[in-house]
Amino acid sequence: MVKQARDIVARGQVIGNGQGPLVCIPIVGRGRALILECVSAAVDDGPDLIEWRADFFDNVAAEKETLDLLAEVRASAKDIPLIFTLRSEREGGEPVQMDDDGISNLCVDVCQSGQADFVDVEMSAPEAQTRNVLAAAKANDTQVVLSYHNFEETPALEELIAKFARAEALGGDVAKVAVMPRDLDDVLVLLQATLQASRETSLPLISISMGELGAFTRAIGWYFGSAVTFAAGRESSAPGQLAIDDLRNLAKTLTRYQAL
Amino acid sequence: MVKQARDIVARGQVIGNGQGPLVCIPIVGRGRALILECVSAAVDDGPDLIEWRADFFDNVAAEKETLDLLAEVRASAKDIPLIFTLRSEREGGEPVQMDDDGISNLCVDVCQSGQADFVDVEMSAPEAQTRNVLAAAKANDTQVVLSYHNFEETPALEELIAKFARAEALGGDVAKVAVMPRDLDDVLVLLQATLQASRETSLPLISISMGELGAFTRAIGWYFGSAVTFAAGRESSAPGQLAIDDLRNLAKTLTRYQAL
Repeated sequence: MVKQARDIVARGQVIGNGQGPLVCIPIVGRGRALILECVSAAVDDGPDLIEWRADFFDNVAAEKETLDLLAEVRASAKDIPLIFTLRSEREGGEPVQMDDDGISNLCVDVCQSGQADFVDVEMSAPEAQTRNVLAAAKANDTQVVLSYHNFEETPALEELIAKFARAEALGGDVAKVAVMPRDLDDVLVLLQATLQASRETSLPLISISMGELGAFTRAIGWYFGSAVTFAAGRESSAPGQLAIDDLRNLAKTLTRYQAL
Repeated sequence: MVKQARDIVARGQVIGNGQGPLVCIPIVGRGRALILECVSAAVDDGPDLIEWRADFFDNVAAEKETLDLLAEVRASAKDIPLIFTLRSEREGGEPVQMDDDGISNLCVDVCQSGQADFVDVEMSAPEAQTRNVLAAAKANDTQVVLSYHNFEETPALEELIAKFARAEALGGDVAKVAVMPRDLDDVLVLLQATLQASRETSLPLISISMGELGAFTRAIGWYFGSAVTFAAGRESSAPGQLAIDDLRNLAKTLTRYQAL
């Protein structure tokens, strides 16, 4: 029996069928029309989760427009659980006309709107603001993905494990770590960190070794405890993402040999 | 550019197309007719290598019969490079009525017959006998796969790296390490050992993390420096082997994302 990642519950039920990683399609359009079109296309692919990368939205700093569009995205996504993510430029997101304060205020409003099942909050954000979002999330039945991204390198094993632990200590619902490997040793470090963190923390984890070197881990990170894998929809949101059909075929084939 | 395993040369040319792991189908029939039938079936699958696991042959201790059958296997295998392997019971092979001395004498004769491109010799065999086979191989243009198998556990990282180094120090042409993981940490240790050994030794390497836990490494061990992956033909010769079509599909899909 191969180890598998923890379940994630949303919209009153466990997401996915327990037979492989949850697949999340990120939405990276810039204009309202394209964003909604991409959500519809994503729904047709039947992912387990949809992530709206709101930092790509060309009018994200206009809070009311963003909340209005979120409601439309939510409606278009039908019953698929939705992650609202405003990735900061600091952690690899698009440039937006908002500071940490503005981002956390928007995240609080997103929680209060009840339109997102998850809100992504970076662990590098100021702790007071993170606590505000966590409180709003808790009060409004929204889950928080506490995340760490590093597009430059893969920190050392203990540092990665500490990131997952910190997500739990802060009171997050899901811990996410996405890092760039410089060699295959780094890819193994990320997998080892995920495996150890899955024993030491109680949260569902998401871990990603990005880029070409780490691409295969998007299909097998599940065994090591990563519950979600991000697949490219029309466009990818990070280097190394596989097309959803390829990801599913890989997982399906491997599952025949590595029974879950 | 993802790292890839070293080329293996046989029959005057580099084996494979450099686009993924070399696939070897093991032949594990007991009687002559079935063995030859399995070789023909394997040839139809177009593997890069065929391994005759002679310890499965029900009359292997009758040396002349084995050498005669080897000639037939060689002819049936057409141009596909052939590995002659008489796996000892000590390393997970079938029980045979031969001691280490008998096995190494047969391997010497196999070298002298010129019917096999490779002979597998276990590093756990007495060193004097191993040297006899290595000398006969060198004199007859046969390559030696120096191998280590452990169906119980995965030794520590340094011990695994030392096995690859020992194969080179003894004068082998290919170093093979196949070990059983007890957990996913062990699977990562095997991959790490392969990666480090591929930097520290000059031989082509073959490494395998067996069983269900290690099954996925049969598709991606290539990136870490394992040149050959064993696929199940009609029957598998070790736990965790994937069907050749599955292995090829996995490698083909991954190659689109992890350019070689």
